[in-house]
Amino acid sequence: LTIAYDGSDFAGWQVQPGKQTIQGMLQRALRRITGHQVHVVGSGRTDAGVHALGQVASCTLEWRDTAARLGCALNAHLPETIVVRQAIDAVDDFHAIRDAVAKRYRYQLQFGGPRDVFDYRYRWFLRGAVDVEAMRDAAARFVGRHDFVSFQAAGSARKTTTRHVHHCEVIEQAAVVRGVTEREPGRTAAARYLAIEVEADGFLYNMVRILVGTLVQIGRGKHPPTRMDELISARNRDLAGPTAPPHGLFLVRVDYAQGSITPSGTT
Amino acid sequence: LTIAYDGSDFAGWQVQPGKQTIQGMLQRALRRITGHQVHVVGSGRTDAGVHALGQVASCTLEWRDTAARLGCALNAHLPETIVVRQAIDAVDDFHAIRDAVAKRYRYQLQFGGPRDVFDYRYRWFLRGAVDVEAMRDAAARFVGRHDFVSFQAAGSARKTTTRHVHHCEVIEQAAVVRGVTEREPGRTAAARYLAIEVEADGFLYNMVRILVGTLVQIGRGKHPPTRMDELISARNRDLAGPTAPPHGLFLVRVDYAQGSITPSGTT
Repeated sequence: LTIAYDGSDFAGWQVQPGKQTIQGMLQRALRRITGHQVHVVGSGRTDAGVHALGQVASCTLEWRDTAARLGCALNAHLPETIVVRQAIDAVDDFHAIRDAVAKRYRYQLQFGGPRDVFDYRYRWFLRGAVDVEAMRDAAARFVGRHDFVSFQAAGSARKTTTRHVHHCEVIEQAAVVRGVTEREPGRTAAARYLAIEVEADGFLYNMVRILVGTLVQIGRGKHPPTRMDELISARNRDLAGPTAPPHGLFLVRVDYAQGSITPSGTT
Repeated sequence: LTIAYDGSDFAGWQVQPGKQTIQGMLQRALRRITGHQVHVVGSGRTDAGVHALGQVASCTLEWRDTAARLGCALNAHLPETIVVRQAIDAVDDFHAIRDAVAKRYRYQLQFGGPRDVFDYRYRWFLRGAVDVEAMRDAAARFVGRHDFVSFQAAGSARKTTTRHVHHCEVIEQAAVVRGVTEREPGRTAAARYLAIEVEADGFLYNMVRILVGTLVQIGRGKHPPTRMDELISARNRDLAGPTAPPHGLFLVRVDYAQGSITPSGTT
């Protein structure tokens, strides 16, 4: 299942007693459709407030119709904040976590300008000016195979903290077009809308949000772009920037190796 | 005060005991800033879920600084879903309801295509095809000075139900650009994004939402565009379409006569 969701009103991906979660909503919908408890395995957890354009999850169930029809049935039972974008048959031993070969995240920011009440759930709003070129320089230094332990939330326990970052880019976005916003004359010019796109073979817990907090410090001139090299070398979480808030973060895509999903390798 | 708000999480404009409302949030912010209870008068109420780009409200208070600084102070005390876009001094007898000469609303719809989890708070999502030309024809028939009692929620009591509609237009919007949505290949083509813009010297209770419900019936071919003339003539609420849901509706602008706000007539 390829799933998009607005994480604003959920306590994250993973089932938690007494809380509304994405996984919980999917499992509830599957129970209503099949009459059975079905376990849904996601490619990874997302925190409360984090959104997804292309989360991937798998499940095993008895279903006599096509996978596409299962997707339609799920959408009829899911809230307006969760949508199944694609449903396909997978090979028997497909595993949404183990078989993932890359993930891409996007983080949206705004520096200066007026607050947009219709965008606040999807973008971190910051006051003041920003040096985008310095952020771009620092982002390029994040790419490569490194030990990213400096960019891991304290208390996490992973076997290895080495990851390969394939891509890390700071993109200047055009003024947000919702068809519903009109801004005050004279204030629009000051706003800068940025998206940070980062892709890797895997991510440590809070890695993207700590990266963003660090890039914001560099964009504000607190540190030079070379700070990024120092932080990677230091292997010390205390030196990196603060963890950016969850609501600017989107899980864009999860990639799988050819053949890991379907026998023909098509997805 | 010119105010924008995301109405999703509020019980509408007007103060209600035990509920979060826009007026209540503004009055709470003013109480924190001034130490006094200040009454805020809006140009009109908006229902729960209805949004505003340019609601206008006035209040009387002791304030030794500029109006613009009051606006900044308010924004520091308001939640992220409410923003004061402009604050100016008004003449002593300004009244936000009485002095309004026109209001403009926008209603956003989507026919067909994939659900967008990031747009559902701001747009009414409908399945199936739509005849936009038929809706345009019907919308043009809504313009003029008429008794709009057929388009008033049952149980309302207004002195007169005659209003002058200056403008009523169905606009086809480009695919929603959030910088965050990516749609499935092959499904995008089917989606039609529409905005209905309507301006009048005043509106009856639920008038825009009943207009939209009626235009949707016409767009789906349930009635021909001439149905609009018949409904206006009939003066019977039971004949008009259903009330469209609140979340697609935006109060865009409130206009005041030259001189009614400031002595110089500038706003």
